[in-house]
Amino acid sequence: MIKTLEWTDGAKPGEAAGIRFIDQRKLPVEEVYITCTTYEEVADAIRTMLVRGAPAIGVAAAMGVALGAKSLKTTDAAAFRREFEHICDVLAGTRPTAVNLFWAIRRMRDRFSAVATQQVATIQAALIEEAKAIYVEDLAANEAMGKHGATLMPSSGGVLTHCNAGALATAGGYGTALGVIRAAFESGKKINVYADETRPVLQGSRLTAWELTKDGIPTTVISDNMAGVMMAQGKIKAAVVGADRIAANGDVANKIGTYTVAVMAHAHGIPFYVAAPWSTIDLETKTGADIPIEQRDPREVTHVGQTQIAPDGIKVENPSFDVTPARYVAAIITERGIAKAPYEKTLRELSTAVVRS
Amino acid sequence: MIKTLEWTDGAKPGEAAGIRFIDQRKLPVEEVYITCTTYEEVADAIRTMLVRGAPAIGVAAAMGVALGAKSLKTTDAAAFRREFEHICDVLAGTRPTAVNLFWAIRRMRDRFSAVATQQVATIQAALIEEAKAIYVEDLAANEAMGKHGATLMPSSGGVLTHCNAGALATAGGYGTALGVIRAAFESGKKINVYADETRPVLQGSRLTAWELTKDGIPTTVISDNMAGVMMAQGKIKAAVVGADRIAANGDVANKIGTYTVAVMAHAHGIPFYVAAPWSTIDLETKTGADIPIEQRDPREVTHVGQTQIAPDGIKVENPSFDVTPARYVAAIITERGIAKAPYEKTLRELSTAVVRS
Repeated sequence: MIKTLEWTDGAKPGEAAGIRFIDQRKLPVEEVYITCTTYEEVADAIRTMLVRGAPAIGVAAAMGVALGAKSLKTTDAAAFRREFEHICDVLAGTRPTAVNLFWAIRRMRDRFSAVATQQVATIQAALIEEAKAIYVEDLAANEAMGKHGATLMPSSGGVLTHCNAGALATAGGYGTALGVIRAAFESGKKINVYADETRPVLQGSRLTAWELTKDGIPTTVISDNMAGVMMAQGKIKAAVVGADRIAANGDVANKIGTYTVAVMAHAHGIPFYVAAPWSTIDLETKTGADIPIEQRDPREVTHVGQTQIAPDGIKVENPSFDVTPARYVAAIITERGIAKAPYEKTLRELSTAVVRS
Repeated sequence: MIKTLEWTDGAKPGEAAGIRFIDQRKLPVEEVYITCTTYEEVADAIRTMLVRGAPAIGVAAAMGVALGAKSLKTTDAAAFRREFEHICDVLAGTRPTAVNLFWAIRRMRDRFSAVATQQVATIQAALIEEAKAIYVEDLAANEAMGKHGATLMPSSGGVLTHCNAGALATAGGYGTALGVIRAAFESGKKINVYADETRPVLQGSRLTAWELTKDGIPTTVISDNMAGVMMAQGKIKAAVVGADRIAANGDVANKIGTYTVAVMAHAHGIPFYVAAPWSTIDLETKTGADIPIEQRDPREVTHVGQTQIAPDGIKVENPSFDVTPARYVAAIITERGIAKAPYEKTLRELSTAVVRS
């Protein structure tokens, strides 16, 4: 199993706790692990995309809050609360689009509130427990999504995915969109994957190709601009992606380029599916227009590694995400079941349907 | 003026003639010129994309034929013809999609036939003259295309282009699609350009951005997968691209990703234009389905410079071109005028309309 991130208690007594991450910036050439022992390091890991993928960011932030709280030396309740809130704010300020980040931090705040009158050590233990619960629930959600979503996959042929919505985008293991693909493949469906390389950060060619190859799932890497003609040629039977935030009306914010995949799929009569855990669904955000879109460093576009691929000083746009209107989404696959249009109704129904395991 | 390629007679008496190319593989970081003094070197320059762009490939091939013929030492007519045919065959075998290559070589063969009974020195001089004529005509065609096409450009707003159909894709100077943009800009239209970076070889970010910036035309580089959402946001008012071959029915083979640009433009009600000299139009090819599509080295997809961006041994597709059906093409801009649907009729009409200047 791919270990995207995990809590470590410290090998020896007295040794600092931490969060061990696979460094996703180094893949697929190097498999390097880095342990963050402060919440500031965790915040940096999220900002610099050492860890990325909406569910993984949520788990990392929860663990970051727990790690920060654990390191506090004060025994004064008011001071502890102040420091705790600061830790939450720093982690919440790392990236704006993936709602899982805010969802996870809210869960940590709720847990804090529930134990706020206890001893500091008890609060710290409760926060670690909560972060670990979020981690375990994420793994379980991916398995459930896979089971539901596999039924939607074609019995054979190409499935397109964009970015990385795999083990590396979640707590580890199955992944969201790739969980659906894995489950379909394991159930005997003869599918092969087209992985959009996903410029500018190349999560598709670097991460999706890496993890699917490990599992022996036939995978072909293509440049993003090749997917359209592969659809026209009949090579792609379905598309499935993850999400960073899904609004109440079913609009989906996901990695830049997802919108183009969805419109092209629609133009070719190919179903376009979104797989995401419930923590990605933001019923408080009415439509996609209300989702903040992160603009990232132009250098992601002008350079690949140390290679400069655009003139000095050229103007660049680098929105990290785009919004796909709900009308292009054939189904939203969650651990609670599959929602189809009209999403306002079906997502609302799922929200009250099942209690988290 | 950008000197994409030019014939050089050799600086001193007795010095070899050659073709001086800007090395497009090194741009935009280094502006390096390389002089090829044999036709084999010219063939390599085309194969390795030191020179690329359909019209430029045509001019380079014509000059390559002239250069090869000039270097022949035989005075025997039959031997000369045999060598000449071999030179033509080698150059014709470099790349399969851009029809300008075959068009230019056919012109050189026709010129050869017209003077075949003459002395070798006369034949050699005629072939150099023909290659230089192709060069000069290409420059003139670009200016004419610019003039025609500028009328189609919006009076203000963003214009999307894909790949490089500029000075660097032609004999130099104006370019095809970028000629249209240049002419519109010079005529006072307040347009700004979105340049798709154009994976995998990045002609957009490396070449289009470089040459438009030199001309002071406002240019923004985006990853290919960003163009769709820029259309949805109203930032793009028109799209204009070049072509590698246009079939009799108006289907357009052009750089991979063009099809996606065209379908996305159509979905957003944005006109999609193609600018190409008459030498790109292949009335002998009935539809796009008959155009051979080059598959290039997977390394173009798996590496950028020395940076590896996909796992070892991963399967890759790397079609260098795709075909855009005529129904997505709002107009084809040539030096002979603008053709609109039905292209079978309008292209046929233009073919007999005007004699090359």
